[in-house]
Amino acid sequence: MYGAGDVRVENVPDARLVEPTDVLLRVTRACICGSDLWPYTQMAHTDAGRRMGHEFIGIVEDAGADVRTVKRGDLVVAPFAWSDGTCVFCREGLQTSCLHGGFWGGTDLDGGQGEAVRVPQADGTLVLLPVGEDDALMPSLLTLSDVMGTGHHAARAARVGPGKTAAVVGDGAVGLCAVIAARRLGAERVILLGRHADRIALARDFGATDVVGERGEEAVERVRELTGGLGAHSVLECVGHDLSMTTALGIVRAGGAVGRVGLPQHEQIPTTSATFFANVTISGGPAPARAYIEELLPDVLEGRIEPGRVFDRTGSLDDVPDGYRAMNDREAIKVMVTP
Amino acid sequence: MYGAGDVRVENVPDARLVEPTDVLLRVTRACICGSDLWPYTQMAHTDAGRRMGHEFIGIVEDAGADVRTVKRGDLVVAPFAWSDGTCVFCREGLQTSCLHGGFWGGTDLDGGQGEAVRVPQADGTLVLLPVGEDDALMPSLLTLSDVMGTGHHAARAARVGPGKTAAVVGDGAVGLCAVIAARRLGAERVILLGRHADRIALARDFGATDVVGERGEEAVERVRELTGGLGAHSVLECVGHDLSMTTALGIVRAGGAVGRVGLPQHEQIPTTSATFFANVTISGGPAPARAYIEELLPDVLEGRIEPGRVFDRTGSLDDVPDGYRAMNDREAIKVMVTP
Repeated sequence: MYGAGDVRVENVPDARLVEPTDVLLRVTRACICGSDLWPYTQMAHTDAGRRMGHEFIGIVEDAGADVRTVKRGDLVVAPFAWSDGTCVFCREGLQTSCLHGGFWGGTDLDGGQGEAVRVPQADGTLVLLPVGEDDALMPSLLTLSDVMGTGHHAARAARVGPGKTAAVVGDGAVGLCAVIAARRLGAERVILLGRHADRIALARDFGATDVVGERGEEAVERVRELTGGLGAHSVLECVGHDLSMTTALGIVRAGGAVGRVGLPQHEQIPTTSATFFANVTISGGPAPARAYIEELLPDVLEGRIEPGRVFDRTGSLDDVPDGYRAMNDREAIKVMVTP
Repeated sequence: MYGAGDVRVENVPDARLVEPTDVLLRVTRACICGSDLWPYTQMAHTDAGRRMGHEFIGIVEDAGADVRTVKRGDLVVAPFAWSDGTCVFCREGLQTSCLHGGFWGGTDLDGGQGEAVRVPQADGTLVLLPVGEDDALMPSLLTLSDVMGTGHHAARAARVGPGKTAAVVGDGAVGLCAVIAARRLGAERVILLGRHADRIALARDFGATDVVGERGEEAVERVRELTGGLGAHSVLECVGHDLSMTTALGIVRAGGAVGRVGLPQHEQIPTTSATFFANVTISGGPAPARAYIEELLPDVLEGRIEPGRVFDRTGSLDDVPDGYRAMNDREAIKVMVTP
C-alpha cells in the first residue's frame, strides 16, 4: 500500500530465512482485515510503500536450524503478531506484548497478502493445523489468525459469562465473531448494534438475540429499553471510532465492562464522570490471538463454531486491490485471498 | 459548606424519622474526607449551603417500624452511600449503584459532620459493630465508612494478588489505606508515589516497600526503573487529578490494571493509544464500602490491619472548619470528629 486507496500487487524480493529461529512459509490462505481499511482510507502517500496482510495460513517450506516445533511440509496458522513464546508476557498469554515480537508487514517484514512470508520466532508464533491445506474448514481456521481471536478477546475483556447480557458494537467481521464468542462464553442475550442486512442475518445465525440499527444517542436509548433501563453487563467494542466507544460507554450497565478491540481512532477515551460513578471497567486491546488458538481450535475442528462464514468473497492476489475497495464500500464483509 | 473555604458550624432542624425504614442516629465519630477538599477548594458560593460529612459511626436513637436489623442502643457504622440492600445492584455488591440509594449530605439529607443523622434504608445501609462506643478500635472502625473500603476497592479494581507488584498513586488517607489493602491481598511489592514525610513513614509501616517522590514523567521513569522497565501489575489511583491518572497509565505494566478511586477532576480519561496496545484495564469508581465492611471488619477487630492510624488529629464539631484547613494545607492527614 502506497497510500490511501493505492494498493498495488508487485514483485518484491523473495522471502528467505535470516535467523535460525525463522521459518519460510508459503502462504496458502490470507485475507484482508477491517483494520487494513484504516490505512486504506487514511494513509499518507509514501514512496517506499507498506507490505500488507497479517492473517495467514501456509505450508512450511524451510525452517531455520533452531526451529523445533514445525518442519517442512507442515500446515500452520500465524496469529497477527509474532512472538517468541518464552518471554514474561508470552508466558502470561499476552503475546502481543512479547518483548521480542512484532507485527507483520510494514517496510521490514513480509505481509501475509503475498506468496511467501519469513516468520521470525517461528516456534513461538506458529501453530500446527491437523488438516490438509484445502480442508473445508480453511476459512474458519484462517479466522484464528485474528478476527475470531479478536472477537473472543473482546468477550473476555468485557467479562462475558453465563446468564449475562452482552452487546456487540459493530457488525464487521470482528463484531460477528464477537457474537460467536459471546454465545460461546454463555451470554444469555446478545444485542448486535449494526445496520447492514447481510451482516445482521449472519449475526442472528451466530446467536445474536436482538439487533439495534440506531446509532449514537438513539442506540443508547434503544439498548437501555431492551435491558430494563440498566444496560448490558458486557459491551464488546469492535469498531474503534469515537462514536462507537461513546456508545459502548453509554450502554454498559453499572459494574459492567467494555472490552475494546476496535483499533482506536482517538487518543483519549471519550468517557465521562458517569463511567466512574457507575464503576465501569474499560479493558481490551490487541488480542493475544496466539494464546487463543489452542482454546478455539477444537471448537473449529469439531464444527461447534463457524467463524469462516464471515468470508463472503474469495480472490487471488491480483484481486486484492479490488478486495480492499469492496470491503471499504461494504460490498463484502471479509475477503479471503488464495495466493 | 457555603462555598470554597467557607465551612460553618450551624444549628439545623433536628434529624428525625421520616420513613418507616429510617433510623435516627446519634453520631459518635465522624471525619473529614479528602474528597471534601474538592468543594472546599472549588465550590461556588450558594446561599443554601451544603451539609457535609459522609463517614460516621453512631448509636441508634430511634428506628422506624420497618427496620429489622438494628435497634435502639446499637452502635453502627454507615458507609458513605446509603442503599436498600435488596435491589439488583446491592445483591451484586455494588451498593453505590443502588436503585433506591444515595449519598449523604447536600441539601436534602443530613451530613455526618453533625450531631445526628436520619439514615434512610437503615437495614440495607448500617452494619452493627460488636464493641462499645469508645472502644480503642474506633478510628480503624471509622475508616470502614470510606477510606479503608475505598483503598480496598482500588486494590480489587487493580487486580492486586499474591506475588504482584502494586503501585499506589497518592499518599492521602485513601492511598495509605490502599497500601494496607494491597499488602493484605498479597502484593509482594508496594510502591508508593508520594512526597510527604509523615505519610511516607506511615506507608512504610503499612507495608510499602518502595517510595517514589518524583512526579509526572520523572515518576513514570522511576517506577519503570524499579520494575525492570515493565511497570506495575496493579496501579491504585487514589488522587483523581489529570496528572495522577496520566502517571497511573504511564506506570502500569502491559496486561495490568489501573484501579481508580480518586474522584476524577477530569472528564475524559487522559489515555493514549499506548494504553490500548498494552491491553491495560481501567477500572474502579466509588467503592461499595457497604459490601466490604463484612470482609474487612474481622481484620480490624482482630488487629491485623490498623487503618485508623491515618487519623492524626481529632477535634469537636467546632473544630471542623479548622480541620478542613489543616487537611487542605497538608498539616493533617485526616481529621476525626467527636461530636
